[in-house]
Amino acid sequence: MDAARTVVRADAPVAGKVGVITGGGSGHKPSFIGFIGQGMLDAVAVGEIFTSPPPLACFEAAKAADGGKGVLLLLGNYAGDVMNFQLAADMAKAAGIPVEQVISTDDVGSGPKEEAHKRRGVVGAFFGWKVAGAKAAAGGSLEECKAAVEKVNANTRTLGVAISPCTVPAKGSPTFTLAEDEMEYAVGHHGEAGTAKIKTMSADEITAKMTLEVINDLPYKAGDEVAILINGLGGTPQLELYICYRKVKQMLDEREIKVGSSYVGEFFTGLEMAGFSVTLMKLDDELKELLTAPADTPNYKVIA
Amino acid sequence: MDAARTVVRADAPVAGKVGVITGGGSGHKPSFIGFIGQGMLDAVAVGEIFTSPPPLACFEAAKAADGGKGVLLLLGNYAGDVMNFQLAADMAKAAGIPVEQVISTDDVGSGPKEEAHKRRGVVGAFFGWKVAGAKAAAGGSLEECKAAVEKVNANTRTLGVAISPCTVPAKGSPTFTLAEDEMEYAVGHHGEAGTAKIKTMSADEITAKMTLEVINDLPYKAGDEVAILINGLGGTPQLELYICYRKVKQMLDEREIKVGSSYVGEFFTGLEMAGFSVTLMKLDDELKELLTAPADTPNYKVIA
Repeated sequence: MDAARTVVRADAPVAGKVGVITGGGSGHKPSFIGFIGQGMLDAVAVGEIFTSPPPLACFEAAKAADGGKGVLLLLGNYAGDVMNFQLAADMAKAAGIPVEQVISTDDVGSGPKEEAHKRRGVVGAFFGWKVAGAKAAAGGSLEECKAAVEKVNANTRTLGVAISPCTVPAKGSPTFTLAEDEMEYAVGHHGEAGTAKIKTMSADEITAKMTLEVINDLPYKAGDEVAILINGLGGTPQLELYICYRKVKQMLDEREIKVGSSYVGEFFTGLEMAGFSVTLMKLDDELKELLTAPADTPNYKVIA
Repeated sequence: MDAARTVVRADAPVAGKVGVITGGGSGHKPSFIGFIGQGMLDAVAVGEIFTSPPPLACFEAAKAADGGKGVLLLLGNYAGDVMNFQLAADMAKAAGIPVEQVISTDDVGSGPKEEAHKRRGVVGAFFGWKVAGAKAAAGGSLEECKAAVEKVNANTRTLGVAISPCTVPAKGSPTFTLAEDEMEYAVGHHGEAGTAKIKTMSADEITAKMTLEVINDLPYKAGDEVAILINGLGGTPQLELYICYRKVKQMLDEREIKVGSSYVGEFFTGLEMAGFSVTLMKLDDELKELLTAPADTPNYKVIA
């Protein structure tokens, strides 16, 4: 039992509430531990930097979160995470804990639309944690919490870009290299190579290119209502994220896509990587209600 | 009237409450506008990047914040800010608005202790905004709000270090240059040169050096209770800030200085500059109560 790799909400387990857990490698702060608390996550399992947590840590998280109504495992689509959480899910089931899982796949830059289920999960997971946590807090069953997060994943798309890499301490060299005039398009939040190295362009230009690809993927259409999430990857000033936000908002306005809520800041980073991502989530009444439900975590709070 | 340079709380002015305003150059997000809201700031005046806001913008902020009980102007000790806010204060007084101001000077790296009043104000101002906002929300008079912030400033000390500069867009070149193996010690949050370029050292080593200088400046002593604020300057991952926090906490424990509250994250940045600062504030019962009072702003919330 590697307790130091499991971080648990102070009052867990909450009796009669579905437990919501996630996890993954370190280096993505405030994800994952910054979102533990009332209305969001009950426990997380954390690995070394950019490395999946061990199965026992995931199992410990599930046990700690189990309030008698089952546990929902939320994870991104990475081989190590999927494997280790599957082992943890098997252990939990053997221990009599009902378990369901949802694997997020919001990164349109990591695979074609025809194979959307193979895409990576990136910052769109934040919406899943918020929605699952709110649904669980409202008394939702394990199946209802799972269905709400599946709806999030089905309606969420993200695309990222980086202008400088990060360096994993254990490796000691940058995750990728770029010339002064290059950007890594469709980068992953571990610095995975994107679909192309492209010439640098202005914040408005790159945001427009990314937003168009995101809009066309679902696609998001006139009359839809969406949430916008502009996520800083670690080394990009918040001021610049707002410049990107402005462009996304303009493009949605032009297409008569309504913006229901907006999130701008660092939610899921890749150490000191400079760059950002654009995420859209199509909203319905249930998702709007769950997004705005109270939450009290170190890095995200919604006041009732 | 340059309304675009004044950002105001949605329900301002709050009748019968002292208005609390601040301001300064842009490029420090989430400061200043991220801290506008219930229990903190009523309005801020913002300038171009790293440039003081014009006096009329400061005056507009004061007018917008005036709920009939006067306005408290909080600013850092920079020549342009001091001059422009003084002009705004004169305009406000001429318009019949009672005004007081407190100039923060928490940066121990910017001058000797004997001339502490000449030091720069840096991220310690965050504590002043929180305390003033809470005091005002609790019905404090203009003099009482001012006295509370003066107590904050008298008990708060900060020291920063950078390992890479930022680039102001209008200038287009880095604010300073460092060799691969150098750090800028006692740097300002605009990238002002510090007291020395020093050889790089580990996070624990540099944190220990900075913390010792901060502790010895006030000095903070055995039996004191303090708040710790580890502020990222923009390009430093939150994960690394927690490594620095751990060292500060160890050093305070060794000296039997009690830690009453902890703040780790980006509160006052210098664009994409990589680095961090260590801030300590000595607490008393009043400051503890005001720090933990409810607040509801985009970038800082305290749930009642």
